Amino acid sequence: MSPRPHEFDLIASYFAPLATGEAGAFGLLDDAALLTPSAGKSLVLTMDAIVEGVHFLSDDPAADVAAKLLRVNLSDLAAKGASPRGYLLTCSWRADTPVEWIADFASGLAADQAQFGISLLGGDTVSTPGPLSFSLTAIGEVGQGGMLRRSGGQLGDDLYVTGTIGDGALGLLAAQGQLALTDADTDFLVSRYRRPEPRVVFGQKLQGIAHASLDISDGLMADLGHLCQQSDLGARIEIARLPLSDAARSALNGTPSLLETVVTGGDDYELLFAAPASAAQHIDSVAAQSSTRVTRIGRLVEPHENVLAVDALGAPLAFKHAGFRHF
Amino acid sequence: MSPRPHEFDLIASYFAPLATGEAGAFGLLDDAALLTPSAGKSLVLTMDAIVEGVHFLSDDPAADVAAKLLRVNLSDLAAKGASPRGYLLTCSWRADTPVEWIADFASGLAADQAQFGISLLGGDTVSTPGPLSFSLTAIGEVGQGGMLRRSGGQLGDDLYVTGTIGDGALGLLAAQGQLALTDADTDFLVSRYRRPEPRVVFGQKLQGIAHASLDISDGLMADLGHLCQQSDLGARIEIARLPLSDAARSALNGTPSLLETVVTGGDDYELLFAAPASAAQHIDSVAAQSSTRVTRIGRLVEPHENVLAVDALGAPLAFKHAGFRHF
Repeated sequence: MSPRPHEFDLIASYFAPLATGEAGAFGLLDDAALLTPSAGKSLVLTMDAIVEGVHFLSDDPAADVAAKLLRVNLSDLAAKGASPRGYLLTCSWRADTPVEWIADFASGLAADQAQFGISLLGGDTVSTPGPLSFSLTAIGEVGQGGMLRRSGGQLGDDLYVTGTIGDGALGLLAAQGQLALTDADTDFLVSRYRRPEPRVVFGQKLQGIAHASLDISDGLMADLGHLCQQSDLGARIEIARLPLSDAARSALNGTPSLLETVVTGGDDYELLFAAPASAAQHIDSVAAQSSTRVTRIGRLVEPHENVLAVDALGAPLAFKHAGFRHF
Repeated sequence: MSPRPHEFDLIASYFAPLATGEAGAFGLLDDAALLTPSAGKSLVLTMDAIVEGVHFLSDDPAADVAAKLLRVNLSDLAAKGASPRGYLLTCSWRADTPVEWIADFASGLAADQAQFGISLLGGDTVSTPGPLSFSLTAIGEVGQGGMLRRSGGQLGDDLYVTGTIGDGALGLLAAQGQLALTDADTDFLVSRYRRPEPRVVFGQKLQGIAHASLDISDGLMADLGHLCQQSDLGARIEIARLPLSDAARSALNGTPSLLETVVTGGDDYELLFAAPASAAQHIDSVAAQSSTRVTRIGRLVEPHENVLAVDALGAPLAFKHAGFRHF
């Protein structure tokens, strides 16, 4: 029941400097933070946690763990069309967690704060006898009525994804030494696993264009299932259209059965969204403006057709795992 | 790296029903929650975590663990004068956590949601090989400029506390069988340890009255030190004035050295606030309105006098432990 020694020093040295960008964080020296939303805006709130050995590997670099924690939450905001405002963070440290690891973790946050224009607002730091674990609440803003939902998909909408699919799940296998790939391909996939790219700028541009949107964390098929369930529709996607990185393509060429990992493995943190065919040109245009790769992979169909992935000949493909979801 | 089985069912059965009070929670079926602040209000945000074996005992009833988690966060909102709006929650379950424990945990949240008029907005559920741990982000509202700070104390202000001091820390000792007390006294103190009483209604009434306020989580002396540090003042409190429960008085009568536990042990979740002498009658009045015991224990003095506790004869008392703080 004893506190971790030097808790005050840890906070003052490594976390208070992360809280300077928002006056309402009070330098982490009050009980709570104060946030005044921009005029006419609503807040979008999301919370995701990561646990050592479950969501990240013990030998993942600390700065990457911090970046991943922040980015998986920013990805949720991006999927809702929200602009990030700030975040609260709980860190559970072990008594033997090296202070260097903590310093690297904070430096990973600092770099991403600068990149995404946000600041730490508050949080908690506790000691644990268990694995390192972190939870983060990210707060974004959106114009009233502007939040993108999972539920707005309409019959006949095109389905799109950002970026490339499967890199995160393959990257986990690569980090565990389970894939025979070139060093360059391995590095690329591991980097995609450790540092997802939240589509923050592009997500905001989808307001008024996309009918429905979410981020792919549980796997393309599972998250497509969520969008369909919430929109009361089915979906048909063409696997041949899936955007794959060169590294993922190399992995699939060597081991075709990895397709299951690509479409159900999760950890993509790319956006999956539905938009009417009439929006195609507009989507190409905002994708180009924000240097975001966007690929049409299928469309929403009648609910009785379920959620179907077909191969290049139109034959249905079956996958064992539906992925898992966060609430 | 595998998901906890039946994660969807857990959420649907036990947590989605907690999210029905706020439309923007979308039944926990979207990536994020949507919260529109009341007109002209700012948001007050706080996040506190609890870990099994560190902040609660393995044999604490699940409903009490849930209530404590929620209440320690509501206590922060109360200290800032904010009215609670909702919360996000991360639960880390072990593979062997009985579903009955989870159900009891959710029922503890449900009871407190009803009592405090709030609703679950979102969160995450993860599996852990370590101790059970939970983190919670509570969101409150306050009129612009109305948030009570630690930093507003003024020279000569009276210092007050709500409720009684020391019950939480003594309750932990009682729960561990370390105190020789009657069953009734033991039950009372253990209950105070497990279920703190956030001063939500009274805290809101302190707006415009108190110059500075915080909640006592790290121990009276440590938190008084925080208020003084942020207000650039010293403090002098009279130990003879400390409001004690009958059970705490019994414990102290048996073992006078427990005074150290009372004033530095923490886990009080009572408010400590500073207000001008001219506010005394108003404070008595709002205390009576909200059925809250309020006791004047000292006053703010020149900074060079430091933070001093004196006995009935005015002699300074020294305590070994300053308590520990959360950021």
